[in-house]
Amino acid sequence: MKALEKIKALKEYAFELQEFDGYLIFNQANLLYLTGFQGVSSLLIPKNGEPRINVYGVNYEQAKSKGNKFRVELVKPHEKLMSKIAKQTKEFEVKKLAVDTLNIKGWQTLKKEVEKQKITLTANNDFVSNLRKVKSEAEIRLLRKAGELTSQGMRIAIELLSPGIKEQELAGEIEYAMRKKGGYGTAFETVVASGAASAFPHGDQSNKEIQRGDLVVIDIGATYKYYCSDMTRTLVVGNPSKKQKQIHKIVKSAQERTLKALKPHLKAMDADAVARKTIQDAGYGKHFVHSLGHGVGLEVHELPVLSSNSKETLNAGNVVTVEPGIYLVGYGGVRIEDTVLIEIDGVEKLTEAPYDLRPMNK
Amino acid sequence: MKALEKIKALKEYAFELQEFDGYLIFNQANLLYLTGFQGVSSLLIPKNGEPRINVYGVNYEQAKSKGNKFRVELVKPHEKLMSKIAKQTKEFEVKKLAVDTLNIKGWQTLKKEVEKQKITLTANNDFVSNLRKVKSEAEIRLLRKAGELTSQGMRIAIELLSPGIKEQELAGEIEYAMRKKGGYGTAFETVVASGAASAFPHGDQSNKEIQRGDLVVIDIGATYKYYCSDMTRTLVVGNPSKKQKQIHKIVKSAQERTLKALKPHLKAMDADAVARKTIQDAGYGKHFVHSLGHGVGLEVHELPVLSSNSKETLNAGNVVTVEPGIYLVGYGGVRIEDTVLIEIDGVEKLTEAPYDLRPMNK
Repeated sequence: MKALEKIKALKEYAFELQEFDGYLIFNQANLLYLTGFQGVSSLLIPKNGEPRINVYGVNYEQAKSKGNKFRVELVKPHEKLMSKIAKQTKEFEVKKLAVDTLNIKGWQTLKKEVEKQKITLTANNDFVSNLRKVKSEAEIRLLRKAGELTSQGMRIAIELLSPGIKEQELAGEIEYAMRKKGGYGTAFETVVASGAASAFPHGDQSNKEIQRGDLVVIDIGATYKYYCSDMTRTLVVGNPSKKQKQIHKIVKSAQERTLKALKPHLKAMDADAVARKTIQDAGYGKHFVHSLGHGVGLEVHELPVLSSNSKETLNAGNVVTVEPGIYLVGYGGVRIEDTVLIEIDGVEKLTEAPYDLRPMNK
Repeated sequence: MKALEKIKALKEYAFELQEFDGYLIFNQANLLYLTGFQGVSSLLIPKNGEPRINVYGVNYEQAKSKGNKFRVELVKPHEKLMSKIAKQTKEFEVKKLAVDTLNIKGWQTLKKEVEKQKITLTANNDFVSNLRKVKSEAEIRLLRKAGELTSQGMRIAIELLSPGIKEQELAGEIEYAMRKKGGYGTAFETVVASGAASAFPHGDQSNKEIQRGDLVVIDIGATYKYYCSDMTRTLVVGNPSKKQKQIHKIVKSAQERTLKALKPHLKAMDADAVARKTIQDAGYGKHFVHSLGHGVGLEVHELPVLSSNSKETLNAGNVVTVEPGIYLVGYGGVRIEDTVLIEIDGVEKLTEAPYDLRPMNK
């Protein structure tokens, strides 16, 4: 979907179904999604008129060069963004304004500015985030590319993992490999967590040397043209112990069963339940301390959430992670994660790398 | 300042000077600053009692292992964070609660929860962000290290810049070099913008090959143990033109004069004015399209802001960028930036690399 088609869809929703007469966007990912470029401070979509973009001087020329479908206005150094927006809502005779997201200070300032015009403000991010949940063909191409780059990074990780390499050093090699293949950066802070630290799902990376026999959780994601990816493998250098193999097998099986179950119209909480039941049945239920997964797109964490209390239903075009894990405090953890596209008849994996616990027989 | 000393300072400010009886922190950088570790969802500092941390299951064990100075509570899968906080405010008999920052949806939910207890909510981020503006010795050591890593990255950029290298490829080499020296990642998306794109202050990076004669703006920052750095150099491959040399000289001179002027008790708007006047006097005033600089710490953009409408006054212990620039649309741009520590008698540069427009005589 192109920028103007998205705006049209938003207008139909907001103005016909929801009876707003203005929609104001502040969230950076929403702005990038709706306009196609960065550096925008606000986007006002009025019922009666053309969309209006506000940008500060630092981004003005860039926005003018890229935003030719929009009327771009400059916020001058001594001008206040919220007063400028209030003038624009007046121009378009807006009375019922929806705002996607805003911090409380900004909200209070905006409210004060528009109160004089008797405008009612409603926080409503549902529409844009719902639109973003179902990826277009163009978005899927970019997400596929981000997934390929991430998979390349993981293969390098598997190749280079050896006793004595520092967590931080391996993280650097992975990021470099993703860059070399055409990546634009990382979707989140690279995780290389070894030994006891692998038992912390968000145990980032330190300058610790990886030891023979350590469980090593590697959680990485490249970006490609603003789109993200997310993938985890867990490895052991040397001979895995019986217990390490057992935990790894359970997590692998939880992921496999979930991937087989994923399809349109499945409830997100039921997807979570497939993985959770597999791990519970193996006796490790209380060690799967997070939800099954999350949507991936312009942000690495977006809708839909795949958790035990999610109210959402999956649809074709959703791109989500499937990442069960078992974490044993003081011992170590195992997580296996892929980013997948939900299709009419199952899933397409956007990330691909070997699952073996023992890499390259090292 | 250690975690508990910061909390003590906050209590004195909030409960003695401001007459609150509870302070609730949600902002991730504020939480990292006050607790010393990541993964916290909220921190309640009550007047009458000990601080209380809430974390979700995914971070619970890590928080317990690192947060031994705090009482850490688990938010269970079917528990709501805001209801849990409301129970805690009741326990501590809080009546006047300050909240650092929160998005409007969260604010509305929290308000509904605490209204039953007749609690008044006030958004007030001033105290923590003011505390964060003046860096401690321990923070300065980390910022110095982040600056060294960034300087290393810039030296590699200068060494490797040559006609035909892609913007994206050079960005990858810079990031790899910063990693190799011990960096933990990047403080923001690496900018390598060449030719006409260099005229956009936030022109990120593309897969375009850098041409002989292009102006190339390189804006980079490493992180070290959560602390950021920020630095820019502008280069030309080959023989710079007379105009390129002239613009570069003006920007360099604007930065030099500002660095000489920086000292405690200088108004931030006066610092901006030194650079702006230099560029205005040379006839390029309207092409300096952004403010002079910003604070750097746990976030790459924090207080104080150095702009023409800033109300702030500089103090010893502030760490700020000084980054004048001239941007000529359709032609190219020049920006020169260093991160500096303001000391009693001047500044210490935390980033260091040659300023020459023509690197290595290539």
